[in-house]
Amino acid sequence: MRLILCGFGIVGQSLAKLLESRSEDLYVRFGIKPRIVGVIDTKGSAVQTSGLDLNKLLDVKKKYGTIKKYSPTKNNLSGVDLIKNLDADVLIETTPSNYKDAEPGMTHITEAMKHGLHVISVNKGPLALAFPSLMELATYNQVLLRFSGTVGGGTPIIDYAKNSLHGERITSFDGILNGTTNYILTNMANGMSFKTALSDAKKKGYVEADESLDLDGLDAAAKLVILANWIMDLKVTMPDIKRTGIRNVSEQDIKNAAKKKCAVKLIASCNKDLTVSPIEVSVDSPLCVNGTLNAISFTSEHSGTQTIIGRGAGGIETASSILRDLLEIRQEISKI
Amino acid sequence: MRLILCGFGIVGQSLAKLLESRSEDLYVRFGIKPRIVGVIDTKGSAVQTSGLDLNKLLDVKKKYGTIKKYSPTKNNLSGVDLIKNLDADVLIETTPSNYKDAEPGMTHITEAMKHGLHVISVNKGPLALAFPSLMELATYNQVLLRFSGTVGGGTPIIDYAKNSLHGERITSFDGILNGTTNYILTNMANGMSFKTALSDAKKKGYVEADESLDLDGLDAAAKLVILANWIMDLKVTMPDIKRTGIRNVSEQDIKNAAKKKCAVKLIASCNKDLTVSPIEVSVDSPLCVNGTLNAISFTSEHSGTQTIIGRGAGGIETASSILRDLLEIRQEISKI
Repeated sequence: MRLILCGFGIVGQSLAKLLESRSEDLYVRFGIKPRIVGVIDTKGSAVQTSGLDLNKLLDVKKKYGTIKKYSPTKNNLSGVDLIKNLDADVLIETTPSNYKDAEPGMTHITEAMKHGLHVISVNKGPLALAFPSLMELATYNQVLLRFSGTVGGGTPIIDYAKNSLHGERITSFDGILNGTTNYILTNMANGMSFKTALSDAKKKGYVEADESLDLDGLDAAAKLVILANWIMDLKVTMPDIKRTGIRNVSEQDIKNAAKKKCAVKLIASCNKDLTVSPIEVSVDSPLCVNGTLNAISFTSEHSGTQTIIGRGAGGIETASSILRDLLEIRQEISKI
Repeated sequence: MRLILCGFGIVGQSLAKLLESRSEDLYVRFGIKPRIVGVIDTKGSAVQTSGLDLNKLLDVKKKYGTIKKYSPTKNNLSGVDLIKNLDADVLIETTPSNYKDAEPGMTHITEAMKHGLHVISVNKGPLALAFPSLMELATYNQVLLRFSGTVGGGTPIIDYAKNSLHGERITSFDGILNGTTNYILTNMANGMSFKTALSDAKKKGYVEADESLDLDGLDAAAKLVILANWIMDLKVTMPDIKRTGIRNVSEQDIKNAAKKKCAVKLIASCNKDLTVSPIEVSVDSPLCVNGTLNAISFTSEHSGTQTIIGRGAGGIETASSILRDLLEIRQEISKI
């Protein structure tokens, strides 16, 4: 399988490492030999139609901060150039999420689908702003769009809800979908002020470059859009979410909750309404996890409430989810 | 699909209700029309090759305590008689688990497979005592053996580990797999004595007729055998499990744990060894759930530790897992 990789940050590099370390095993167990034939980062591109040398690619990135220096030729192409000019099977979109116009990811994804490429996106922007129409575009072009890494990182929340509860009707769900705000709220429950907790989270590298994505609940809302579309078949986008972040959660709120054996958590909820807001959760609830953990509780018709807890993000976890999507695409294609 | 149902206790009856209430939906969404053509309980049998009237069957069971009175003919057959003489596609085995010789479930399952029937078992006995050889028998006879309801009730633990983590290597797991002992230990943590907690659990109907299955960890060990075989590809049976129950957990043990912010839980663990034993678990761990909840934490190579929490058992939850297995069998068959 020939891959085009847009974005070569932590996730892209982790994917390159994972493909390199698992190559033999992937061939033996699943019969696939994924090759990255083109990659872009913010400064340039690298192309090799027989497959890039991933160790060299990682070395070049480490040394120069860009993959532009991989080769003196074809090093100044855009993502769209690669999509239009390379023979490839799958686009992997890992550029940063933005919730204004979702670019450049939106153009990468739509162009790729129009050119018959399957798409794996860990970029939440395009899905949050246009999930229903992207799905239609995929159907129209007879390609697959997968996005396991957008929610729950390495924890296969999306797959679980869609496949493991096969034959069940999920009636509602509630989740802690943003590890950063959970980390801050956990520290506040342990006595820190919001300000100190935020700067601690920043020091640890947990906060997005644009802190609003975490603090104002945009990241959680984007994940809620994705889950609501994929699991509940709702045709919704970002503006449909009622959203309140954690900036106004006071130390007093946290104390009041604690008195009731509760903790304040930023909960993304899909019930009658779609909301993201700080809510008091009983500390005895399985949903009430601490630190950077994510958790989601699905309520289904016959099986009661089921909770999945796992690490929310991280380069290698997200790379691992891309690999899962790739294997699924491989399986789906082979059925045709 | 024509089904033979062995056992018509809570699970069997819940399945009949579920099939009845979902019949239209199952046809529309999945294209299947499951019909129970034969059923046995401890006192007799009921047979109708065009499919039993499930409402009548449930009424008869309620009125007479047995389905024997459903019809004056063919009401005295054994499970093996049904398997040998009826045209059917799937055997559903719901007779009680026993860990001495696993009968009558063992004979039902092996006979069914020899006669070309796929098997769904929620009876843990045969799997605990002979998982590897039953799997071989299924392969030899080219039938499918499924058993989602044996672990986690309605919570699709087995499916999650096998399918949702596709492409990942699970390296170890630990779980609270028996809700009854968890209920007793939770009550002890809240100050009850073992004796009072046990009699409370009995009053609520949580304890198996043979209390040893819960208290001595047999039920948890059986589930560990099933998971170890299915997920980790270990060829093990009950005698391979190092097993300690909860009878010797003292109130002092519970107090000592609490001082360390821990709780004593009966943990089934698959790491280097396969063990079931009472262990101190940090109350901050996602695994540390209370009441009758079950929880299992899988550690995988790239995605860290992931925990699933849900209700462990119950008639409707287990019936729902049988339905999931049925849909999976339907899907697998249609691929051939």
